[in-house]
Formats: sequence, C-alpha cells, structure tokens
Amino acid sequence: MVPVRSSAATGQTLIGLDLGGTKMLGVLMDERATVQLRVRRPTPSGGEVPVCDAVLDLLAELIAAGKRAGRPIAGIAIGSPGYIDSEAGVILDATNLSVRNLPLGALVAQRFGLPAVIIQDVKAAALGEMRFGAATGARYTAFVNAGTGIAVGLIMDGQLYQGAANRAGEIGHVVMRPRGPLCNCGQRGCLEALASGPAIARQARSAAAWQRPNALLELANGARDQISAEIVAEAARQGDRLALRIIGAAAHYMGLAIAGLINVLDLQCVIVGGGLTQMGDLLLDPIRSTVYRYVLAEYRDAVPILPSGLGIDAGAIGAATALMADREI
Amino acid sequence: MVPVRSSAATGQTLIGLDLGGTKMLGVLMDERATVQLRVRRPTPSGGEVPVCDAVLDLLAELIAAGKRAGRPIAGIAIGSPGYIDSEAGVILDATNLSVRNLPLGALVAQRFGLPAVIIQDVKAAALGEMRFGAATGARYTAFVNAGTGIAVGLIMDGQLYQGAANRAGEIGHVVMRPRGPLCNCGQRGCLEALASGPAIARQARSAAAWQRPNALLELANGARDQISAEIVAEAARQGDRLALRIIGAAAHYMGLAIAGLINVLDLQCVIVGGGLTQMGDLLLDPIRSTVYRYVLAEYRDAVPILPSGLGIDAGAIGAATALMADREI
Repeated sequence: MVPVRSSAATGQTLIGLDLGGTKMLGVLMDERATVQLRVRRPTPSGGEVPVCDAVLDLLAELIAAGKRAGRPIAGIAIGSPGYIDSEAGVILDATNLSVRNLPLGALVAQRFGLPAVIIQDVKAAALGEMRFGAATGARYTAFVNAGTGIAVGLIMDGQLYQGAANRAGEIGHVVMRPRGPLCNCGQRGCLEALASGPAIARQARSAAAWQRPNALLELANGARDQISAEIVAEAARQGDRLALRIIGAAAHYMGLAIAGLINVLDLQCVIVGGGLTQMGDLLLDPIRSTVYRYVLAEYRDAVPILPSGLGIDAGAIGAATALMADREI
Repeated sequence: MVPVRSSAATGQTLIGLDLGGTKMLGVLMDERATVQLRVRRPTPSGGEVPVCDAVLDLLAELIAAGKRAGRPIAGIAIGSPGYIDSEAGVILDATNLSVRNLPLGALVAQRFGLPAVIIQDVKAAALGEMRFGAATGARYTAFVNAGTGIAVGLIMDGQLYQGAANRAGEIGHVVMRPRGPLCNCGQRGCLEALASGPAIARQARSAAAWQRPNALLELANGARDQISAEIVAEAARQGDRLALRIIGAAAHYMGLAIAGLINVLDLQCVIVGGGLTQMGDLLLDPIRSTVYRYVLAEYRDAVPILPSGLGIDAGAIGAATALMADREI
C-alpha cells in the first residue's frame, strides 16, 4: 500500500471498489477521478461470509488511509459482477463470487455510516469511460468487456442503459454460430464461447495438440493444459501464426457483434476493455478491421473502436462515477 | 373513401399519414387512436415534386373530410421511410421515394397552418404499438418491421430511441452470415438479404428452378420470375414443404437477431409487423421457437413475440402518436 498523495484535496474523496471474481481493487479518488490510493487483495472463495468480510476489511483500510491523509470519505461505490439490483443495493446472483441475494450496499452503508452504491461492474466501467475515460464527450457509446466473460455496458443519450429488469448487456450470450462450441450458459456458439479468454485458451489447447512443435506449447513448458489466453497473447507478440490466427478468429466474432451494435444503436464510439485487451492492438486491430468491414457504410472508419482509457481502474472509478451521478457530485 | 363516422367526437382529431414506397395510407383519428377515416393512394414515382403533390392532396382531402364532419384537425403527422431529421422536419434521404433533403414537415405546416411532424415509419410504428397496440404497458420493447426491408424501432424506458444521429434501428444490415447472399447495401449476409420479402422471393425462385413440379411454380402460373413472397406464403398455407422450409429459414435468421436484441437490451416484449407478417403464425411460430431456443434462459418463453396490434395502421397511428407526445396530447 502506497501512502495517500499529499497534493491539495480537490473537494470530495470517494471510494471505488472493483469486486472481481479473483481479485478486488479499491481506490481512493477525488471527484475528477484522480486516484490517490490503490489497494489490491485477492477475492476469497467460499461465498458471502468471506466475501463480505474481505470487502468490509478493504473498505475500512481505505477509509482509515483517507482519514490519516485528512480526507474524509464522502461515499463508497462497489462494482460487482453478476446480476445486481442497484436500487436495493443487492447482489442478486453472482456466480463468480458464489453469492446470491447479498444486500452488500446496505451492509456497507450501515457499517461505515456512509452513502453506498453497488452497480454491475461492466455498467460501472461504461459510466467511468464516458465521464473520465476514452468515451469522454460521447453520449451514445458501448463499453465491451472482454475477459473471462463478455458483456457490454451501454450509454444512451448520456445515460446508463439498464433494461427492463436491470439485466441489459448480455452480448456475450448472443449466438453467433448456432452449431458452435458449447457455452457455460448451456447454449452453443455464444460470443463468449467463441471469443472470451477461456474460449481462446481452449482453442489454443486444441490446436496445440496437432500442430507440433509450436510456440504455444513451448511457452507452456510442454504442458498443453497450461496454455492460457495470456500465453496465446505472448506467442502472438512473438509473431506465432497459430496464436495470431486464434486471436484473429476471436476478434472476428467480437467485431461482428460490435458492428451489429453500431448498426442497431447508432453509436458514436465503442470502447473495448477487460483482461483480453492487455493484448492491445494485437486484439484491437483485427476487431477494428472486422467492424469496419461489416458495419453500414456511414459508420465505416467513422466510429472509433478504442481501448479503455481507465484500464484496470475502469470498474472502481466507474462505480464511483455512478455514486457521483447518484449524489450529483 | 368511407364517410367520417358520426360518433361523438372525443376531443382532438389528428391526421396520421403513412408514406410508403408504393402506397400511402392516411387516417383521421382521435387521441385514443380510434380511426374515423382511412384513405389509400398509390405513391407516385418520380421524386420529390410528385410525392409532395400527392401528400398535400391526400392531406387536403382528409382535412376537408374532417371539416365536413365538424372535426377540425389539431395536427398532421407523417411516417416516412428513409433517414429522417424529425427535429428539422426533413426527409434527408429516402431511396424508396427517390427523395433527398425534402423539408416535408415545413411544407405541410405552411400549407395547412397546422402543427406537423415527420418521423421514420418504423420508429413511428414502435411508438404506436407501445401506446395503442400490442406493446401497451411495456416500457422496453422493439417493433421489428419485416417487409421489403427489415428495421427495428426501439422503445427504451418508455421513450423512442433515436441513436446518436437519428439513425438507430438498422437491424436489417446486421451481418448474420458473412459469406451469405449479397444485400442491397453492398454487404453480404445481412439479415435483410436472408429474411426480407425480396430475399424470400429470391430463394423461392432459385429453389423452384430445380424442384419440379412444385406449388410455387404452379401458383405463379409457371412463371418462375413471378414468384413473390406472397406466393411463398400462399404455398406454405397449402402445406407446401419447400415454401415452409424457405419461410422457416427466414424466420430462423429473424429469430436469431431478435434473440440477440432481447439479450443485449433486456426487453419485455417484441412486436413483429410489416408486410411479411400477413403470413401470421406461419412466420411468427418459427420466429418464436428460434428466439426461445437461442435467448438466455431467463427470457425463454417469458418475452412475448407478438404480431402488430395496429396492423396496416401502425405507421399512420404511430406517426400521430409521435405528434401527440410532441404536443402532450
């Protein structure tokens, strides 16, 4: 943990917490999204009790750090995976966290006596990118999160789009190839089953079985089941054609889905974030060329496809952005 | 032309005009969307002068009929195909009408001294279905128009969704099969190239060439190039398996696209209208089964796929609905 920066406080200090399936990132930030402190912790497994305890501990630590630096906290915002009821402050169902019906918003507000919001992580990131990141100034945009899962946060007319039951954004389960590979949701050929991190890893493991020798196996020290999306990215950076082809196929499906979004929703720009975008232009360039190939002529080369401007902070800053909107900060 | 009904006037009378590529339908209606008079005319070809003249003539006729029945007109609303700037009242580009940059809203308002709005026809129908038709009560819905083209009007949180430049709704140009048949837009495998009326007719003509004898050719009196979507529908009604297969394939692509819409936008219901829906459940049943097969589990059998409640009046009533919203009637 690094000390809180001692630069003059510029008004309110907020806590944003990105509660991921494997790790948590908490930030102290001001209302211009300048991050003063970042704290990372692994997310414990075991369901709601350990998850709750870990969240409350991390928040206590951030609040204490704020206090020491003379920055009282104005509110707490949590970005969470899964299906969230933001109005009630409840995580309704988050498979990644093994949590159901957890009123985390109320628990946090009660414990610390502070305003607290909880918002789905990808929606949070979309808000953050619009207000402080790559989509600043855009009123119609989409934040596509490409990692273990694939989802989209939609900004329409400057507002976060939630859908009829707050479930909007499941682009990862749009069926792109009806006879394609099986998805976790039980369907075949979902975007997520074709282009997520696990999908890339699975394709690479399968390809590595019949193409020998190959850079993928070498990077995994010969252990085919150790080939991950990160290893595919590394092999692609080294110019490995098999790795490039696998990434290109994933980018093709992402690009097709994004082109569809642009055509239907008439967007100004699309932000692509999430773990897979650590590959940078290795992933973004083929996504761009697919989007511009398949989108209506008026959008071709006219709708920028941009990497996240907030990077790993997108979820935490985005959640705090939701709190700011909520409280008109 | 039938005489204006003499039932007691229930407040304001409005004119809604659906300006189609081949025909125009004008209605006199009250603010509960009860249609008092319908007038149909062919849409002249030849671009803006004949189109404008025909529109102004039809409107004058409706206004005169209203006057004779003691119903002064409160406003005029026009639904038009193409790319419309509703704020400026301009048809920017309507290929079907051979019209560009036509300030039809201002022309109509000036000529008759009445408030006038112009709105894209599919968006109009979506508004009409939400307020008076099959989607009454829904706040998140889509009206999919399936006819010569395919487009969608989106209602989000009870409001018509326009997009960044008023161009939203081009679901017909979402690429469903990258190596599929050529579309009018220059792309391959767009939904419109797979499932529109002309696409169905094209597939039927092609299939009729190698499957002889068949009901399609018989219904077209042996003239393969006379096989239309209507003939395919008629053959399907008679149980012709080839016709049913062609309609099933179109419904498959429509269903896949609608399933994607529901997943991404979290909709409460979807209305399917337009010329192709004259087939009724012959088209809607296979659309439904595809949607429920490919949508996320929580939407399965839970999001109704409904035929238009306003039928052929959807565009005209819908345009008038936009005028009512505009003027808070």
